[in-house]
Amino acid sequence: MQRRELEITTGARRITDVTAELAGFARDVGGDGLLHVFLPHATAGLALLETGAGSDEDLADHLDTLLPRDDRWRHAHGSPGHGADHVLPAFVSPSLTLAVDDGRLALGTWQSVVLVDTNADNPQRRLELRFLGG
Amino acid sequence: MQRRELEITTGARRITDVTAELAGFARDVGGDGLLHVFLPHATAGLALLETGAGSDEDLADHLDTLLPRDDRWRHAHGSPGHGADHVLPAFVSPSLTLAVDDGRLALGTWQSVVLVDTNADNPQRRLELRFLGG
Amino acid sequence: MQRRELEITTGARRITDVTAELAGFARDVGGDGLLHVFLPHATAGLALLETGAGSDEDLADHLDTLLPRDDRWRHAHGSPGHGADHVLPAFVSPSLTLAVDDGRLALGTWQSVVLVDTNADNPQRRLELRFLGG
Repeated sequence: MQRRELEITTGARRITDVTAELAGFARDVGGDGLLHVFLPHATAGLALLETGAGSDEDLADHLDTLLPRDDRWRHAHGSPGHGADHVLPAFVSPSLTLAVDDGRLALGTWQSVVLVDTNADNPQRRLELRFLGG
Repeated sequence: MQRRELEITTGARRITDVTAELAGFARDVGGDGLLHVFLPHATAGLALLETGAGSDEDLADHLDTLLPRDDRWRHAHGSPGHGADHVLPAFVSPSLTLAVDDGRLALGTWQSVVLVDTNADNPQRRLELRFLGG
Repeated sequence: MQRRELEITTGARRITDVTAELAGFARDVGGDGLLHVFLPHATAGLALLETGAGSDEDLADHLDTLLPRDDRWRHAHGSPGHGADHVLPAFVSPSLTLAVDDGRLALGTWQSVVLVDTNADNPQRRLELRFLGG
């Protein structure tokens, strides 16, 4: 198994495109296999999405509708509504498995991989990539 | 890694059972390993579900409640509410990993694999299967 | 591929921490690779979550908001609102892939793996672990 660990600066951005980082790792390891993408964080997730046409903001805003940033949450430290961030990974998982074909990250034309991070208190995220060849 | 690519006609169907296609591939590759199931599309997802007892329609209808087909979405081309389809894959991922035991797709008695596709504008979908033996 | 099958008693608990079980299997198999975690059930899912700080109850309660236990569901056998349990796995998948580094389950400091089971009618669950080394 080959590994790479990346530091991603999300800052106040709720959706951060990491496709280029994954494609670069796939190219470097080469060959065929599975790429395991993982965030070792309890308040962030990974999603496949078309970016750049509004869906990134649509997703970020709709997360505020589905997981309201109000005082309903027991887990209530940090900024207001932060408990919502802690429930997010149950719906948008921090674990994602993709395929690599001959060093090429296998994605559809309109798919990008994004880091979903509604937690502005944590502007730096670690992204773990592992490749299992076959 | 062994691969198979399938064309699935979803038409206007929102939930399409693809279990037989996956089980057939598992049988053909034989052995033990992981089966990576992937949709290279930005408006569809994969789910494990009991089918044929109402839950398929329950899921499709409830997606309209959770992701309303109204004018809230920035991504607004195509048919009304189509922006909802672009947010769907963040919650119902187009990537799913299953196990194969000696050529048998490992599923529980009541589990089927379904393609979730609320986008009626796209009646044809590509399904990518990859098997990594172990 | 190495396998382990566990019986988990969830009882009336909606969130059950299974991290220790997974870490024990990772230790026993040793080496590097991918750990496939799977529930062969149609009314349960797996999530990565910080436990013990309120988010477990937050998630369980919020599932009742997102998937209300009322009479909207076609799939309507069993206890009231049971149809919601059958839709749950589309959003909280029963399939989860994790990484193992030299026999250590790769998780972040605040991450635990939980079995999400809103179906009190089924107090016993089977958990399937498979390890594919690399």
